[in-house]
Amino acid sequence: MLSPHRWNAATHTYEAVPGFALPSTAREMPPDDMLWIDLMDPTPEEESRVFEQFLPVHALTLGDITKPRREPEQGAHLPKVEEFADYLFIVVNPLPPGLADPKATGGRRIRLRDRPQLSAVLTRHVLVTHHYTAMDCVAAVSGYVARHGECAKRGPDYVFHLILDAVVDEYAPVVERVADRLDKLETRVFRNPSPEELARLLRLKRLVSGLRKTLILEREVLSRLTRGEFQLVDDREIAYYRNVYDHLVRYTELIESAREMVSDLMESHLAAASNRLNQVMKLLTMISTVILPMTLIAGVYGMNFEESAAPGYHTDWGFGFALGLMTVVGLVAYGLFRWRRWL
Amino acid sequence: MLSPHRWNAATHTYEAVPGFALPSTAREMPPDDMLWIDLMDPTPEEESRVFEQFLPVHALTLGDITKPRREPEQGAHLPKVEEFADYLFIVVNPLPPGLADPKATGGRRIRLRDRPQLSAVLTRHVLVTHHYTAMDCVAAVSGYVARHGECAKRGPDYVFHLILDAVVDEYAPVVERVADRLDKLETRVFRNPSPEELARLLRLKRLVSGLRKTLILEREVLSRLTRGEFQLVDDREIAYYRNVYDHLVRYTELIESAREMVSDLMESHLAAASNRLNQVMKLLTMISTVILPMTLIAGVYGMNFEESAAPGYHTDWGFGFALGLMTVVGLVAYGLFRWRRWL
Amino acid sequence: MLSPHRWNAATHTYEAVPGFALPSTAREMPPDDMLWIDLMDPTPEEESRVFEQFLPVHALTLGDITKPRREPEQGAHLPKVEEFADYLFIVVNPLPPGLADPKATGGRRIRLRDRPQLSAVLTRHVLVTHHYTAMDCVAAVSGYVARHGECAKRGPDYVFHLILDAVVDEYAPVVERVADRLDKLETRVFRNPSPEELARLLRLKRLVSGLRKTLILEREVLSRLTRGEFQLVDDREIAYYRNVYDHLVRYTELIESAREMVSDLMESHLAAASNRLNQVMKLLTMISTVILPMTLIAGVYGMNFEESAAPGYHTDWGFGFALGLMTVVGLVAYGLFRWRRWL
Amino acid sequence: MLSPHRWNAATHTYEAVPGFALPSTAREMPPDDMLWIDLMDPTPEEESRVFEQFLPVHALTLGDITKPRREPEQGAHLPKVEEFADYLFIVVNPLPPGLADPKATGGRRIRLRDRPQLSAVLTRHVLVTHHYTAMDCVAAVSGYVARHGECAKRGPDYVFHLILDAVVDEYAPVVERVADRLDKLETRVFRNPSPEELARLLRLKRLVSGLRKTLILEREVLSRLTRGEFQLVDDREIAYYRNVYDHLVRYTELIESAREMVSDLMESHLAAASNRLNQVMKLLTMISTVILPMTLIAGVYGMNFEESAAPGYHTDWGFGFALGLMTVVGLVAYGLFRWRRWL
Amino acid sequence: MLSPHRWNAATHTYEAVPGFALPSTAREMPPDDMLWIDLMDPTPEEESRVFEQFLPVHALTLGDITKPRREPEQGAHLPKVEEFADYLFIVVNPLPPGLADPKATGGRRIRLRDRPQLSAVLTRHVLVTHHYTAMDCVAAVSGYVARHGECAKRGPDYVFHLILDAVVDEYAPVVERVADRLDKLETRVFRNPSPEELARLLRLKRLVSGLRKTLILEREVLSRLTRGEFQLVDDREIAYYRNVYDHLVRYTELIESAREMVSDLMESHLAAASNRLNQVMKLLTMISTVILPMTLIAGVYGMNFEESAAPGYHTDWGFGFALGLMTVVGLVAYGLFRWRRWL
Ligand SMILES: [Mg+2]
Ligand SMILES: [Mg+2]
Ligand SMILES: [Mg+2]
Ligand SMILES: [Mg+2]
Ligand SMILES: [Mg+2]
Ligand SMILES: [Mg+2]
Ligand SMILES: [Mg+2]
Ligand SMILES: [Mg+2]
Ligand SMILES: [Mg+2]
Ligand SMILES: [Mg+2]
Ligand SMILES: [Mg+2]
Ligand SMILES: [Mg+2]
Ligand SMILES: [Mg+2]
Ligand SMILES: [Mg+2]
Ligand SMILES: [Mg+2]
Ligand SMILES: [Mg+2]
Ligand SMILES: [Mg+2]
Ligand SMILES: [Mg+2]
Ligand SMILES: [Mg+2]
Ligand SMILES: [Mg+2]
Ligand SMILES: [Mg+2]
Ligand SMILES: [Mg+2]
Ligand SMILES: [Mg+2]
Ligand SMILES: [Mg+2]
Ligand SMILES: [Mg+2]
Ligand SMILES: [Mg+2]
Ligand SMILES: [Mg+2]
Ligand SMILES: [Mg+2]
Ligand SMILES: [Mg+2]
Ligand SMILES: [Mg+2]
Ligand SMILES: [Mg+2]
Repeated sequence: MLSPHRWNAATHTYEAVPGFALPSTAREMPPDDMLWIDLMDPTPEEESRVFEQFLPVHALTLGDITKPRREPEQGAHLPKVEEFADYLFIVVNPLPPGLADPKATGGRRIRLRDRPQLSAVLTRHVLVTHHYTAMDCVAAVSGYVARHGECAKRGPDYVFHLILDAVVDEYAPVVERVADRLDKLETRVFRNPSPEELARLLRLKRLVSGLRKTLILEREVLSRLTRGEFQLVDDREIAYYRNVYDHLVRYTELIESAREMVSDLMESHLAAASNRLNQVMKLLTMISTVILPMTLIAGVYGMNFEESAAPGYHTDWGFGFALGLMTVVGLVAYGLFRWRRWL
Repeated sequence: MLSPHRWNAATHTYEAVPGFALPSTAREMPPDDMLWIDLMDPTPEEESRVFEQFLPVHALTLGDITKPRREPEQGAHLPKVEEFADYLFIVVNPLPPGLADPKATGGRRIRLRDRPQLSAVLTRHVLVTHHYTAMDCVAAVSGYVARHGECAKRGPDYVFHLILDAVVDEYAPVVERVADRLDKLETRVFRNPSPEELARLLRLKRLVSGLRKTLILEREVLSRLTRGEFQLVDDREIAYYRNVYDHLVRYTELIESAREMVSDLMESHLAAASNRLNQVMKLLTMISTVILPMTLIAGVYGMNFEESAAPGYHTDWGFGFALGLMTVVGLVAYGLFRWRRWL
Repeated sequence: MLSPHRWNAATHTYEAVPGFALPSTAREMPPDDMLWIDLMDPTPEEESRVFEQFLPVHALTLGDITKPRREPEQGAHLPKVEEFADYLFIVVNPLPPGLADPKATGGRRIRLRDRPQLSAVLTRHVLVTHHYTAMDCVAAVSGYVARHGECAKRGPDYVFHLILDAVVDEYAPVVERVADRLDKLETRVFRNPSPEELARLLRLKRLVSGLRKTLILEREVLSRLTRGEFQLVDDREIAYYRNVYDHLVRYTELIESAREMVSDLMESHLAAASNRLNQVMKLLTMISTVILPMTLIAGVYGMNFEESAAPGYHTDWGFGFALGLMTVVGLVAYGLFRWRRWL
Repeated sequence: MLSPHRWNAATHTYEAVPGFALPSTAREMPPDDMLWIDLMDPTPEEESRVFEQFLPVHALTLGDITKPRREPEQGAHLPKVEEFADYLFIVVNPLPPGLADPKATGGRRIRLRDRPQLSAVLTRHVLVTHHYTAMDCVAAVSGYVARHGECAKRGPDYVFHLILDAVVDEYAPVVERVADRLDKLETRVFRNPSPEELARLLRLKRLVSGLRKTLILEREVLSRLTRGEFQLVDDREIAYYRNVYDHLVRYTELIESAREMVSDLMESHLAAASNRLNQVMKLLTMISTVILPMTLIAGVYGMNFEESAAPGYHTDWGFGFALGLMTVVGLVAYGLFRWRRWL
Repeated sequence: MLSPHRWNAATHTYEAVPGFALPSTAREMPPDDMLWIDLMDPTPEEESRVFEQFLPVHALTLGDITKPRREPEQGAHLPKVEEFADYLFIVVNPLPPGLADPKATGGRRIRLRDRPQLSAVLTRHVLVTHHYTAMDCVAAVSGYVARHGECAKRGPDYVFHLILDAVVDEYAPVVERVADRLDKLETRVFRNPSPEELARLLRLKRLVSGLRKTLILEREVLSRLTRGEFQLVDDREIAYYRNVYDHLVRYTELIESAREMVSDLMESHLAAASNRLNQVMKLLTMISTVILPMTLIAGVYGMNFEESAAPGYHTDWGFGFALGLMTVVGLVAYGLFRWRRWL
């Protein structure tokens, strides 16, 4: 679906442009206008119309843009920014929708390949965004710009920063959810260090590692956009990119903390399990050290002799004596081990 | 609450300025005066009066300053320094009050979100500090400058360095407390490697990690202020910023040592627990290897035969002989295992 | 085998050149022609014909090229790019064929020495590729250029990028296979943490480490080719090298994830094994704590006295009473330990 | 104590200067003379005489110099070098005396706060050294210069390098002692992996970590002095600073090796302890699997029946048969487990 | 022993120079000649003759060269390259002879101090090499240059590269041996995770760590020689130094792999030992859970009552019944635990 919108400097309006009303090439656009073309799951024909006719890009750029369609099993292109003679090409990987909602993803594992790809081409007057799945971040910005048309006047660099901001804001609930799960897992790991908890930790670690990798790559992209390296990003917009960069730094810090925490919990799991074992073994040892000597005494009194010399054998207090002896031995064993702090 | 104080170069005095006596904009200030406006938990109107009228700042700067009010669940903005055309914007995260006092925080977990935000805007003649909670570091410097008015003459850069110095000095008791707890935990971990100690170590590790992160970010801020990168920081004040930087380096070193120590203790906990297990198992093994053979002998003598051939069955020394045999077997088992150093 | 192909600018054709029709030196070539000489397992005479007569290279370059023949036990030269006055010398290590096919390699361990060496010498008009084993990546590009002769017109730098692209594409199935094996091993490690699984993990880790090292070295080579450091790589071809570089980055990310995963699984293996032990020990403890006291009671009733005072000795409900007592003691022991959550 | 010595260029002598004979300020000194003032545990008045009158330094420099006196619980300032308009300020942390002598320190823990502070101020013609405790490194150099007066002619930079050299040389016996203790601990860890050995390793690790940190900071100081960054260090003296730097590098390498070794030993301790456990458990298992079946047979023969059908009950070979059966069962159990290599 | 050889440009010969025929200083040498003086375990007088008279070097250079003689317990100076006004000073640490031969070193531990020191001083026309032990690398190059005199014509930089090449080539058999031992240890660790294997791993790790450190320092030296930083190394020789650098990189890669492998094996050792424990404990548990209930039944039948109500007491099938009951209980226990997969 190809949905172009245009800021008309003459009429001071921002309006949808019917597809057929596009100038045949971007060069024919009036110098003060701004055009945003959003390609949502476009047909190859629409891609060709935009990237080969209207705004011709390098074959490799087109290859990167259409990668998810051409190599669906390989997943999104990793985040990058690349400068060409007449345009800036940026790829980011927004979070897959539903990631923040525990119900929605269940135990489903997050992989690099699950992340959608958002490609963007910026020139002085044109912004093209391209993606094969519906994206909240694009939809939200699209609505915002429709309501505040004058921000389109600031150019593609300003509008694109709004999209990046929305992409980055989507980390907030996910990071929140990760923190919540960590809190729950921490309690569980100490109370019941089972293999199920370990598997949960491992799954969480993989999610956190995946988030961290995208964050690092996107921070690199933002860092370059912020450095004033690209002419197509106006100096006065750099503060806005820096603002987005700040948010990325914050989420990176939080994810790094989560990562450290998962590692600590994995180690604690091992320690807690070994502690459980200690407890169980102490119990076994206590039972054994108390009962075994008592059993020995019973065995001794169970020996057969023609004429037993066992103390009390011929008396009627013999049975009681033997029981008492057992009790004393049991208590002494128990007391001794408590006193030596072995148990 | 908006509390402006002014160094009047004409009268050589440093005095409180009633709110309504502020010039309408900072540009109207006499060239040799210096003004410090402290905004403690200000109303949005006061924020607007200062940051939109008196000293207009970039919308993003205002956004960063008011972040704790607008996004309370997100916590403070991370430390940073940002240069704009006509002002320098600095954010630091002083320690949450009461952190150094074991009673005050109890087992309460320290999170990034618990750290308050102190924002500052510096121009050639004006210093604005902004925070939503009362801060000892600001109050102390405020009192000091009131008593030594002439240091205000040195300008906002000098006064702000005093605040940073106070912020950094607050690490001292916290670092001290961490060292104390580590000393206690070290003894405990070896004496009683319980899961409670492990949980305490984990909590301490998180505190130390959190401190380390803020320290690193604030060191980066100080490092940039020290490098002579910003015109608004006079060359002659750089030695003062470097002094604060030195203190940060010291605390970072101490926190790094603490971090290493916590990790070592977590590893030692595991080793100490496994050692406990060894001790318990040796005990069990010793009991078993001594008692089981004795019980076997008792069992042998407990066997029923019409005519038993057990040694001593028909004699009156039989019982004593059996007991003696048991004792010998027990002692031999014990001795053998001591001799082979298996126990 | 020496197979030269030539782009004839005059006839606009790309055709095989019979060996004897080569100009005696590269300097005699027409300025717009392009020549690709592929040396597949050449004889020393062919190597001398090309690298000493036709296109004389430094003795050290020839030494590096012929290393696999001269020092077969040492394996391939590591990837590098080296600029000489009149040519560019590049070495890469394509993956050994069959690596992606589980059947083909079986449990065979991958070593640095198993990787073949592909050497290339580039001048303005000549590309020489050299390798001692047949390589799919070279064969594929050779066929492609034969079908699309005009790409030879773009020069050795463009043609060589096609080869690098093919070399890098060979990582895809290997990375895929590694991911598959990791998925399988993850399930197994939790279900049955045996030493066989550990050995498998160790083998996989070595494969992943080996891949990672080659990837890092080849990324360095690509990074230098991309940076515009070498005159012999035209500016307009740099985007193509960057494209290959992007793919390398992707595989590096995937391999890094795999590496992290293997390490996590090795740690999980240990935890799962210790968990198994816990389970077994709990069982032993349960049996012991239930049976031992019952045995003690049986032992008590087995004691011999002239006149036993054991409860029920003289009655006919005595046997039943003793059995009941045992049952009660067993159940109480079991219940107690369940209630205290020791088991 | 203030002890100034002066190289008199006129008389070619190096002699003690009585305190009152000092010029009132350093500026009044003859251009070819050189003065070394050593302040050993000076009074505040002496400090003021030197650093405020004779050679006025920045208030912050004085603050850093007197830190151990003003904040005794905080310990020495960390090593640093700082350039001011007319002097160079250097702080190093010599090793606490007695560290290399096992007897002297016993189990005493080395902390950052135990390290003394040596401060130095260098100008073109004056060297001031300042410390609150007696230091062998200063005393030794002081004696050497007194004997070889002409080296004072080379200026404060040469003399100060002698002190740094002495400071660095003090690492040799400490590093030697660490290596010795590691050798002993290695043997012990494998022979007897007790918690005491673990605690010793932990203590050694902390010593090594502390040494490493000072070494790194001092290496940074030396590296800057070597780089030719400071005018006050003559080019011809740089080789001497580089020589000291080489020694620091050597000790850093040795300490890094020790650190790695301690970590390996901590890991080996865990493994050795777990191995001990294995040995003990095998013993227990062997005893149990041999004795328990034998006891069962004894129990079987101990059963009471009106008319027992136990093999041999009515015979006189019954007892011997039962014993033989037990022996066979015991041997079979033992043999089976050896054959299956379970034990 | 002082053995000078000279390339005589006039006679085009390379011949030994009797000691007394040396020019008194290097400055008097004919401009096209080249002189290589090899000092093998020289007397202090020979050192003085060469480094104080013939080719005077800085006192610190002489100090570094004679370090192994002056401080024998401290070992060799670490590898470095240092440029002086009129000469280049290089130190490398060849491998101690016999390191690659398992027989020769036995279990002897390799320490930094065991590595010999090879010092070299290069000027435009003179190469001095200095070492206190015989070195294969020097001897081999000496013989080669004697046979191919014309390579001496290329100057000290070319000849010295030959020595470095020989030094680096000595790593090959050592790296090979390390790989072999790792292969053996891998098998052993899984088959028999004993403390002896752990100690062997630890020893191997120390060897690998030591090799790695020298490799890193020597790579730094080679890297600087390759960078064209030193005038005394001709541009046309840089490719030769780069060739040596390539070999160093290769050995570093191999040693890094070995290091990783040793670490993995140490971790695997722990896991394999814990696995052994699991096996043993399962056995113990199986024996206990099968035998203990059987013993209980025997105990029950061993109880004494005036009139036993035990099933079958009065019959002649009682004994058989009891045995059958035991067998059933044992089989049920065994079956139950197999069915629940607890064992
Ligand atoms: Mg945002
Ligand atoms: Mg991932
Ligand atoms: Mg960048
Ligand atoms: Mg910013
Ligand atoms: Mg912001
Ligand atoms: Mg933020
Ligand atoms: Mg302070
Ligand atoms: Mg944190
Ligand atoms: Mg910075
Ligand atoms: Mg200071
Ligand atoms: Mg090579
Ligand atoms: Mg490709
Ligand atoms: Mg490898
Ligand atoms: Mg590079
Ligand atoms: Mg691409
Ligand atoms: Mg690309
Ligand atoms: Mg890609
Ligand atoms: Mg680990
Ligand atoms: Mg300080
Ligand atoms: Mg020295
Ligand atoms: Mg320390
Ligand atoms: Mg420094
Ligand atoms: Mg240096
Ligand atoms: Mg030296
Ligand atoms: Mg030295
Ligand atoms: Mg570890
Ligand atoms: Mg070589
Ligand atoms: Mg070493
Ligand atoms: Mg260097
Ligand atoms: Mg190279
Ligand atoms: Mg080579």
